[in-house]
Amino acid sequence: MNKVGIIGLGHVGATAALVMAQRGKVGKIVLVDKNQEKAQAEQVDLQDQIALLNTDTQVVLQDYEANKWEQLQDLDVLIFCAGQIALLKDHGGQRDFELHMTSKIAAEVAPKIKASGFNGVIVNITNPCDVIARLLQEQTGLATHQVLGTGTGLETARLHHAVGQALKHNYHDVTGYVFGEHGDSMFPVWSSVQVAGQSINNWSLNLDDLTQKIVTGGYTIFAGKQYTNNGIATWVNLITEAILSNANRALPVSAYDPQLKLYIGQLAIINQSGVRELVKLPLTKTEAQNYQNSAQTILENYHKVAP
Amino acid sequence: MNKVGIIGLGHVGATAALVMAQRGKVGKIVLVDKNQEKAQAEQVDLQDQIALLNTDTQVVLQDYEANKWEQLQDLDVLIFCAGQIALLKDHGGQRDFELHMTSKIAAEVAPKIKASGFNGVIVNITNPCDVIARLLQEQTGLATHQVLGTGTGLETARLHHAVGQALKHNYHDVTGYVFGEHGDSMFPVWSSVQVAGQSINNWSLNLDDLTQKIVTGGYTIFAGKQYTNNGIATWVNLITEAILSNANRALPVSAYDPQLKLYIGQLAIINQSGVRELVKLPLTKTEAQNYQNSAQTILENYHKVAP
Amino acid sequence: MNKVGIIGLGHVGATAALVMAQRGKVGKIVLVDKNQEKAQAEQVDLQDQIALLNTDTQVVLQDYEANKWEQLQDLDVLIFCAGQIALLKDHGGQRDFELHMTSKIAAEVAPKIKASGFNGVIVNITNPCDVIARLLQEQTGLATHQVLGTGTGLETARLHHAVGQALKHNYHDVTGYVFGEHGDSMFPVWSSVQVAGQSINNWSLNLDDLTQKIVTGGYTIFAGKQYTNNGIATWVNLITEAILSNANRALPVSAYDPQLKLYIGQLAIINQSGVRELVKLPLTKTEAQNYQNSAQTILENYHKVAP
Amino acid sequence: MNKVGIIGLGHVGATAALVMAQRGKVGKIVLVDKNQEKAQAEQVDLQDQIALLNTDTQVVLQDYEANKWEQLQDLDVLIFCAGQIALLKDHGGQRDFELHMTSKIAAEVAPKIKASGFNGVIVNITNPCDVIARLLQEQTGLATHQVLGTGTGLETARLHHAVGQALKHNYHDVTGYVFGEHGDSMFPVWSSVQVAGQSINNWSLNLDDLTQKIVTGGYTIFAGKQYTNNGIATWVNLITEAILSNANRALPVSAYDPQLKLYIGQLAIINQSGVRELVKLPLTKTEAQNYQNSAQTILENYHKVAP
Repeated sequence: MNKVGIIGLGHVGATAALVMAQRGKVGKIVLVDKNQEKAQAEQVDLQDQIALLNTDTQVVLQDYEANKWEQLQDLDVLIFCAGQIALLKDHGGQRDFELHMTSKIAAEVAPKIKASGFNGVIVNITNPCDVIARLLQEQTGLATHQVLGTGTGLETARLHHAVGQALKHNYHDVTGYVFGEHGDSMFPVWSSVQVAGQSINNWSLNLDDLTQKIVTGGYTIFAGKQYTNNGIATWVNLITEAILSNANRALPVSAYDPQLKLYIGQLAIINQSGVRELVKLPLTKTEAQNYQNSAQTILENYHKVAP
Repeated sequence: MNKVGIIGLGHVGATAALVMAQRGKVGKIVLVDKNQEKAQAEQVDLQDQIALLNTDTQVVLQDYEANKWEQLQDLDVLIFCAGQIALLKDHGGQRDFELHMTSKIAAEVAPKIKASGFNGVIVNITNPCDVIARLLQEQTGLATHQVLGTGTGLETARLHHAVGQALKHNYHDVTGYVFGEHGDSMFPVWSSVQVAGQSINNWSLNLDDLTQKIVTGGYTIFAGKQYTNNGIATWVNLITEAILSNANRALPVSAYDPQLKLYIGQLAIINQSGVRELVKLPLTKTEAQNYQNSAQTILENYHKVAP
Repeated sequence: MNKVGIIGLGHVGATAALVMAQRGKVGKIVLVDKNQEKAQAEQVDLQDQIALLNTDTQVVLQDYEANKWEQLQDLDVLIFCAGQIALLKDHGGQRDFELHMTSKIAAEVAPKIKASGFNGVIVNITNPCDVIARLLQEQTGLATHQVLGTGTGLETARLHHAVGQALKHNYHDVTGYVFGEHGDSMFPVWSSVQVAGQSINNWSLNLDDLTQKIVTGGYTIFAGKQYTNNGIATWVNLITEAILSNANRALPVSAYDPQLKLYIGQLAIINQSGVRELVKLPLTKTEAQNYQNSAQTILENYHKVAP
Repeated sequence: MNKVGIIGLGHVGATAALVMAQRGKVGKIVLVDKNQEKAQAEQVDLQDQIALLNTDTQVVLQDYEANKWEQLQDLDVLIFCAGQIALLKDHGGQRDFELHMTSKIAAEVAPKIKASGFNGVIVNITNPCDVIARLLQEQTGLATHQVLGTGTGLETARLHHAVGQALKHNYHDVTGYVFGEHGDSMFPVWSSVQVAGQSINNWSLNLDDLTQKIVTGGYTIFAGKQYTNNGIATWVNLITEAILSNANRALPVSAYDPQLKLYIGQLAIINQSGVRELVKLPLTKTEAQNYQNSAQTILENYHKVAP
């Protein structure tokens, strides 16, 4: 039976659980939140939901205060999305504030994950995604292939949408990836982008405007909702299903780069063991430079909070 | 192509859109919210979501300030979930405050729906659900069968879950309905409840405790989340799908009772035209009394705000 | 990862694989057929199908002639639907011919299953379903709870449809079960049947006509198609999903009756281990008699072929 | 409500209905077959299936002998898959025999479609697919954009699978199309093929061998099953869903080429009206030549049976 845990039941974690219960491919979901009243509320709401569906996902709670997080022991996948977005809002969305806050949460939770005996795959969503993925890997002691971040998957979806809209094509007919930091230094790998079988270079689009639109998308959502959940929850579910079904899918996630020794958004083959291997997508000179720049940003952030 | 509108993009409306986009049975979703920044944020987040799925729902906005809500004209179903739950929280969840607030919103929006030329089925979620359904019907001038409320569907789901849990049965093996007001005066029609083919009377359960648990479920969710969304969004989607596929399903919704001249939670056959007909479920003497009591509560609330 | 094997790729087995690939809840399907060209053809056709979906089920073959059926070792569920329906047609559908043919096939295959180290749950479809389930249990040496048959699930579906049609209700609003032999001696447990929350006795239907219609349904399909596949494949998938998700659902399957010492269609709680327990549905005197009659028929057939 | 008709209930038509009922996006399916006993058998089997699902597709029959095929009048999509594959088998699968047989069937059925008042989109599957699509368009008098064939969609799926397998990539990470005749003269547009964001030319594969494998796939299935159904039914459902949801997807179908004045497998934007427009995919010189060769084959076949 497929078993998935979710640590952190903010909007993203709660919506990820909702999507999984809706799809019915996960047999058991374990919910963990420091606010146990919140965890219980989500459990009841999920049970109401499932009673109205024809799926049979079991939803259980892991007591945050327990000495041992036993429910985590035999999970296949553990989604990490702990954070305090409300605090973040109070600080005007300042990235540095977020970095210090979430790295502390990771440091608090990682030992509990380790002690639970968990030996599956961690998928990190908490921002800054690339830095927290690295901290979780280091502090749980899991192999680098067992930890990954949602990375630039959401930006990739936005790329498909922005290009599709510009060319009056369905976004499912656009392929190609966004790489780099899950943050402002991310960049579309334009050389990988195709629309209905043709290179995007066959059209004369203003690629800088499109890149801008991908960044803006996130801010538009945040401005109107004060959080984002639909896209990211759908994306983490997609990664999770690829792990559970051992799909060997090439997905744009935050994966460990052994040369740079950090996590960064790139293409990786995802299967049961997490990252089976990296896909070495050929980059143009500019793209390669963008990748280095993004890595530099991630590294600097990492060093601000590294133990 | 199936077309659905959603008025009000709070947690419930936004989650209903998310569920519909996920399932992919609706070809077009029209979003309406007085806060247009919020509407736009939801549109972008839904588009991110859909770009990651293999569904093709188109998401468009209806400008709230427009003279004519033209996007509503040819919709099959219109979900009404406008409200201001944040205000409600500030007033300690007082039902009277909510009644006065939401009846004003209904009075503001109903004429716009009428003027749009909409001639499909309205499904109301806004609380107090039964009263607002009646106001919407009266103020849009649509036929009574074209307007219904989500009613006691959520309580019915909770009934299935509570009974299943008490008897160690899967909740999908529990049938039967909750009737009456969507509120504290609702009541399980115990005489309709079966578990795996047997009347619930074959077990000696404390039915009052179970009734209490159904009520408590809602409060548990509200206490932990300050809103409920999974269950209600799934339920309104289920009703919507029954309308779109002309399913003639018997569902516990808030439907117009021609004798009492009000909307109240009961069993009704739902199809393309809304309520095809009521199911006259035989009630015990106590259940019939509960029904009258519930109707009385609804009526009193209605008179507090009736024009 | 969920893993399911299918032995016998006639119309039923092939359609079961198609349904599972379509739903995408099974990570790996192992196909086994004596006619390996057929197995390979199904594999390629399934792979074409999956390439067009967004699911990721892996489809592999078990060489029928191999000394050890290694692919079966770690399966969660094994569907047994080996038979030779073409031969059956040549013999005018004679049940005795079928019994002798399929019991031989079971005797040939059961030792191979045993030798593979398989220790999951077998779901038998091959007819006569109740007899073959017993033979498979005896000859594989698996515990009785690990072997079950599809039993009267298809007749139960037909019951729901026939009653719904007679009363102009949606068939999903009809509950209740058919019990007994998967064959002409089956019988609806009318005392369990409800329509939209009411006992079927609240209507004056000719129940004998309806019973006849359930039997006739199968013959109508066979007359027009020379086999049935949609219903039975959907049913076996439903049982399989209940096992994989440890759903504890009450389903009308062919389960081992410890008093009668045979397999017969009845209500059983299905979970990860197969049959968790039987549901002792109260039967009227007539229904209890029908159950005994059905058991007698099954027993006689069993003795015709028991080793 | 989405409405789809299926003419011809051989393995392909029956499986298309099964897939649609399973997915539940179509509200009503109309079945048509000269063998009405067969049509009725499929209806009952589909109803058994649906009773076991939580979908609500209505399945109705159109009497083949009726003066007017009234059930076709308001359909959105009509799938044409009439043929007599059993006869074909007797003639060793000879393509010329098939052409003469199926063109006669098209000539018999097209006037009935025309007389029904049908004004939606026809999707033809019957082989030779490109020729029959043209005959249906001419003989129903529908606009060329309202008629299309399944074309090279199945070969495209096989391309994705063959390339994925060769490179140990998931087939969902392969994009690009097969064009031309749905027959031996089809050809992969290699210049459009990407694997995980990279041109296939980045690897040194033997493309001729892969092309061969795509052709062989069909023969392997036919050799083992004597028909193909999973892939083609899934593909026609995908086209149908693109039409029903007005998706504007670029799909490799058999569409009308106004210059060549015939139907041939190419990329076309599919929406509610059928083919919105063709995608003029740039072809290499060899690919352009292959396209002309394929067109020539189709033309010759057309002239063998053109009225």
